[in-house]
Amino acid sequence: MIELTLIGIGTGNPDHVTAQAVQAMNAADLILIPLKGPEKTDLAELRRGLLARHLANAATQVVEFDLPLRDADNPSYRAGVSEWHDAIAAAWEHQIRAALGPDPAGRVALLIWGDPMLYDSSLRIAERLGKRLPLTPRVIPGITSIQALCAAHAIPLNAVGASVIITTGRQLRAQGWPPGAETVVVVLDGGCAFEVLDPEGLSIWWGGCVAMPQEALIAGPLSAVSAQIVATRSALRAKHGWVMDIYLMRRDA
Amino acid sequence: MIELTLIGIGTGNPDHVTAQAVQAMNAADLILIPLKGPEKTDLAELRRGLLARHLANAATQVVEFDLPLRDADNPSYRAGVSEWHDAIAAAWEHQIRAALGPDPAGRVALLIWGDPMLYDSSLRIAERLGKRLPLTPRVIPGITSIQALCAAHAIPLNAVGASVIITTGRQLRAQGWPPGAETVVVVLDGGCAFEVLDPEGLSIWWGGCVAMPQEALIAGPLSAVSAQIVATRSALRAKHGWVMDIYLMRRDA
Ligand SMILES: C[S@@+](CC[C@H](N)C(=O)[O-])C[C@H]1O[C@@H](n2cnc3c(N)ncnc32)[C@H](O)[C@@H]1O
Ligand SMILES: C[S@@+](CC[C@H](N)C(=O)[O-])C[C@H]1O[C@@H](n2cnc3c(N)ncnc32)[C@H](O)[C@@H]1O
Repeated sequence: MIELTLIGIGTGNPDHVTAQAVQAMNAADLILIPLKGPEKTDLAELRRGLLARHLANAATQVVEFDLPLRDADNPSYRAGVSEWHDAIAAAWEHQIRAALGPDPAGRVALLIWGDPMLYDSSLRIAERLGKRLPLTPRVIPGITSIQALCAAHAIPLNAVGASVIITTGRQLRAQGWPPGAETVVVVLDGGCAFEVLDPEGLSIWWGGCVAMPQEALIAGPLSAVSAQIVATRSALRAKHGWVMDIYLMRRDA
Repeated sequence: MIELTLIGIGTGNPDHVTAQAVQAMNAADLILIPLKGPEKTDLAELRRGLLARHLANAATQVVEFDLPLRDADNPSYRAGVSEWHDAIAAAWEHQIRAALGPDPAGRVALLIWGDPMLYDSSLRIAERLGKRLPLTPRVIPGITSIQALCAAHAIPLNAVGASVIITTGRQLRAQGWPPGAETVVVVLDGGCAFEVLDPEGLSIWWGGCVAMPQEALIAGPLSAVSAQIVATRSALRAKHGWVMDIYLMRRDA
């Protein structure tokens, strides 16, 4: 039986690692480090740094491997993602059997960006893997990009007693400002979806590569800072080859 | 000048503490531990345990003090909260001047339950304090109860590519299921507000005192487990004198 632990490692600052995450790294027989996307070198470097600093168990195997790519040409987005998740589960299975044998048992861990619960597919991939290999999933929470953003700006997530909507760039672009919403947090935005909004009465707190050395932060009325965010985001991407950004918007009281 | 650091400490499991939180504790000249509510002994005990384990700086002063109570009789909820926040800012100021002198300077820290950004008033109180005492606020994120809940149930927060609403028991009770919502997380629920919903087609993942020794977890279709949650919640409260609970509900696909 495999115990598969998804370890949240935070979103850039290595000091966001929790004591529980360090314990789980050291309890693992095998740690898988999947590489993906244009940011793969930088993010893999961060994971290697965490392990170099915290992994004291000489018996733990650490294996890096390339993730299969998603077929962006699949006409159905959901079907494309589903096939891709199957391919990733097969890749995990392959690495687990290669490291722990054809009838594998023991503790396998993955270092997950931020927290495994937030816009991350690892739990769903683990579910698929569970159909190929008996396993128990376990989750260690980690500091998310939402928290890193709020901490960097020293702002609360919610207005007093009010609700918060967390959404994606794709949803914001398709649906606009959610009716009645006071606070909206946007992740996974391929490109400044806030530009579709009427900026009147909205403020934004934006962060690119938050909690990383190249961090950029901008805050202000959306109408005043929108262009500056667009420019800063593309400068970050030009300079580093990739960018991850996140923002919180609030309707002025 | 005072640097006031709000240190998120997680929501029960002492191993949720981050490396950054430990560094901030040890960098502080003064750590304030406000006591409040019926759970004050238990939660103060957790903070004392964290400090006993991680605070190595003998020069750091640790001061516990009782928080002023909120005037629940104030006819306006918002006005009552606002006066209460002023009173807390005055209490912080009093403790800071008592420990660091009439013209205080240095690093003051507070250990905040979960993450200071999530339904916590410390940032707003710090803003009020800033009008009485020159200060720079700093935030160290910590694992929230939402993350502890999702980790305990090993579930994702969001459905694939979909949005999430975080709200309070009071809002849910007043407004019902938010129109169009897929996932709703409820915190600060004085008493099982999910009972106002039509449970048809909803599933719930509930946790009482998540990540604490007395943790209770229940999951299932809302119609099937609703009564069990109500009973478990009141048993927890009867046994320990207080209960904190949180839940995630999803509309079945
Ligand atoms: C696939 S999601 C993963 C989220 C992650 N599980 C978390 O807990 O934050 C990736 C998105 O998270 C956000 N993100 C993650 N890390 C970030 C960072 N350091 N700075 C800004 N945004 C970040 C971006 O919106 C990015 O598109
Ligand atoms: C004033 S809010 C503070 C939230 C905190 N800042 C956080 O990051 O989770 C308190 C609410 O958080 C939730 N909560 C906090 N700790 C919890 C725990 N260990 N188990 C269940 N719910 C918890 C409950 O809904 C409670 O009413």
